[in-house]
Amino acid sequence: MRNFYPRLRLNEIICKENISRISFRASQSGASFRPHFKTHQSAEIGEWFHKAGVNKITVSSLKMALYFAAAGWEDIFIAFPVNLLEVEEFNLLASRINLSLSVDSAEVATGLVTKMDHHAGVYIKIDTGYQRSGVPASDTHCTDGILKAIKRAEKLHFKGFYTHSGHTYHASNREEIKAIYEDAVTKLNGLKQTYLDQFPELILSVGDTPSSSILTNYGDVDEVRPGNFIFYDLMQVDLGACQEKNIASVLECPVVSKSESRNEVVIHGGAVHLSKERLPYKGFEIYGKIVLLNEAKWGESIPDTFLKSLSQEHGIIQTTAQHIKLFNIGQTVGILPIHSCLTANLSDRYLTMKGQIIEKMRS
Amino acid sequence: MRNFYPRLRLNEIICKENISRISFRASQSGASFRPHFKTHQSAEIGEWFHKAGVNKITVSSLKMALYFAAAGWEDIFIAFPVNLLEVEEFNLLASRINLSLSVDSAEVATGLVTKMDHHAGVYIKIDTGYQRSGVPASDTHCTDGILKAIKRAEKLHFKGFYTHSGHTYHASNREEIKAIYEDAVTKLNGLKQTYLDQFPELILSVGDTPSSSILTNYGDVDEVRPGNFIFYDLMQVDLGACQEKNIASVLECPVVSKSESRNEVVIHGGAVHLSKERLPYKGFEIYGKIVLLNEAKWGESIPDTFLKSLSQEHGIIQTTAQHIKLFNIGQTVGILPIHSCLTANLSDRYLTMKGQIIEKMRS
Repeated sequence: MRNFYPRLRLNEIICKENISRISFRASQSGASFRPHFKTHQSAEIGEWFHKAGVNKITVSSLKMALYFAAAGWEDIFIAFPVNLLEVEEFNLLASRINLSLSVDSAEVATGLVTKMDHHAGVYIKIDTGYQRSGVPASDTHCTDGILKAIKRAEKLHFKGFYTHSGHTYHASNREEIKAIYEDAVTKLNGLKQTYLDQFPELILSVGDTPSSSILTNYGDVDEVRPGNFIFYDLMQVDLGACQEKNIASVLECPVVSKSESRNEVVIHGGAVHLSKERLPYKGFEIYGKIVLLNEAKWGESIPDTFLKSLSQEHGIIQTTAQHIKLFNIGQTVGILPIHSCLTANLSDRYLTMKGQIIEKMRS
Repeated sequence: MRNFYPRLRLNEIICKENISRISFRASQSGASFRPHFKTHQSAEIGEWFHKAGVNKITVSSLKMALYFAAAGWEDIFIAFPVNLLEVEEFNLLASRINLSLSVDSAEVATGLVTKMDHHAGVYIKIDTGYQRSGVPASDTHCTDGILKAIKRAEKLHFKGFYTHSGHTYHASNREEIKAIYEDAVTKLNGLKQTYLDQFPELILSVGDTPSSSILTNYGDVDEVRPGNFIFYDLMQVDLGACQEKNIASVLECPVVSKSESRNEVVIHGGAVHLSKERLPYKGFEIYGKIVLLNEAKWGESIPDTFLKSLSQEHGIIQTTAQHIKLFNIGQTVGILPIHSCLTANLSDRYLTMKGQIIEKMRS
C-alpha cells in the first residue's frame, strides 16, 4: 500500500458518536432509521451502522446500490428519481434484495409498471418546498396518477411518501430549520390522511442532516434518512447543525511551498481532492479551514486562517504573520472540508487516526 | 461492461484536431511540446499524442507519473512542487525513467540533494505574476540559493525555468492574455541571460491553455506544456481561447424529472460528476450548458438554457417555455462542462461517439 498524499483521515471515535446520537434520536422518536450511505460510501463503515441496529439503508445511485447489495445489505432505497434507461439493472437487483425506487411522475411510474419483472417498493417523492424534484405536496392530481399506475402493477408495492428538505441548507438559523422541518412534516401528514384508507401501511420518510441534528424529536414521521451527519463539515457548523468538534474527517495535505511576504502557504490538496464547494467567511469565499494533526487527533481550526483558492492539485492557505510559523514545508496540515460528502467521494479510502485503512466504493 | 449513467462522451475527431493544432504551433515556434496529461489522464489518449510525435510529458502528481510511466512514457516532468514526504517514490521512479521535478525553495532543493539516490532533472518554478507558487522572477537571491544546492548534488541536473501563467484565467480579453504571456516570456528570458553562463543548456518552459490557444507563435521559449486544450470547455470559450465547436467532451446525463411550470429539468448529473466549477452567465452562476446528442455528434448549446444548480447527484437545468419541449424523461442530454479537467477527473472512462470505451487512470 503506497503512502500517497493527500489522504483522507477519519476520527473513528467521533464518527461512531455521530452515529449513536442520530440513531438514538430516531429510536426515541419512534421512527425507523434508514441512513443515507452516499456520504461515506464504505462497506466497512456500513458495518458500524449495522452494529448500531440498522438493517435498511438509503443510497443515491444504482452504482451505490449495487456496491452495498454486494456488501450484504438486503433492504436498499435508491432515493433518486428512477432513470428508465437503467431498468434492466433495477430488475436484476430487485431479484436479489428488497429494493425500493423513487418516482415523481405518472410517466415514470407507467414506465416501471411495464418494465419491472421483480417485486420492488415505490416511494413517491414529495416536494415540500425545496423545488428540486418531487410532486408538489398540493398536487394530488399528479399523486393520484402515479398511484393509479402503481396499483395496476403486480410487481410494484407503494411504500409511502418521502421528502428531502434541502432548503434547510439555505436557512439562516436553527429556528428557520425547525420551521422548515415542521412544515414538511405537516404537509406529509396531510397526504397521509388523504391516502391512508387506500394504503393503510403507507409510511412517511424524511431526511436531511440539518433538521435531524437540530431537532431532538422527529415528530410524526415513520422513517428518517440523513447521511452527512456521520462526518459533518464546515457547512453544517455554519448552519448550527453541529460544532467543529463533531467533524469526523479531515484531508491531510503536505505543505509544499510558502510565502512569508504574503502569509500564504501552498499545499498539495486541490479541487480533485476537496471539490470546489465553498462557504462565505469574513468577506471571503473559502474552501476549508486548517487544523494541525498529531498522532492521535487534530486540534481546533487555526484562527484567521483558511483555504482561499483551489486549482486542480494546489490549495492556497491564507494565514497571518502570527500563524505562518505553524506551517513547515515537508510537514502536513489538515483541511476541514466545506462539504464532506464531496470530499469523501473524491477519495478511494480513509485512514483512521489509529492508522487503519478503510476501503470505500470507487467512483 | 455495465451501462452506467451519466457517462462522459468524447468526440475523438475534435480531440485529435485540438492535438494537431497546438502541436503544429509548437513546432512552428521552434519549441518542443511537453503536453500536460492531467486533463485526460488516459494512457490510450496519450498514444494519440505519441503518434503526433510527442515523447515527453507533464503531469501534476506522483500518482499520475506512476500511471504514465507504467504506460511506457520515459520522460516525465511532475510540474508540482516536490513533496519531500514522497521522496522514496521519486527515487524509485527516477531509477526507471527520465524524471524531472519542480522546486521553488532552497529548503526543498536541499532536502532533495540529500535524499535523491538516482538521477533526476530539476526545473525551478518561477512566479511571473500568478502568485500561486514559485520563486518571484525578481528574487535572484532565492534562485541562487536553489542553484547552489543543486550544484552540490551529483544526482540532480538543473534543466531550466518554468512558469504557469494561471492568471490568464482571470483575464478579461484576448489582448490581456497576450500581454500576460509576453510579460512572462520577457521575465523568463531575463533569467536566462543571468544564468546562461553557468548553465549553457538551461531551457525556458511555459504552459497554459489560454495563451497557447490565442497565440499562434510562442516566441522565445524552448518548451510548451498546455493540457486543457485537448478537451477545452466553457471557461476557455469564455476567455476567447476556443469556440464552442472545439469542445471535445460532454457529460451525457439522463433526464429524470421536469417541471413545466418552472421550466426546469432534473438530470442525473451532479457535483460528483461535474465538480462544482462555475461561470458567470447572464446574471447567473452556471455549472454547464446543454446540448442534444445524436448517434454521431452533439449540436450547439440550447439558447437561454443552462445548468443552474448541482447537488451530489442531481443537476437542475433552467430552460424556457419554448425549449422545455426538447427535454423528455427517459432520454439523455449532454452537458458542456465549465472545467473539463475536473469533469474528466471524476470519470473512470470515456465513451467515444463511435461507441468505443477509453479507459483512464482512476483517481
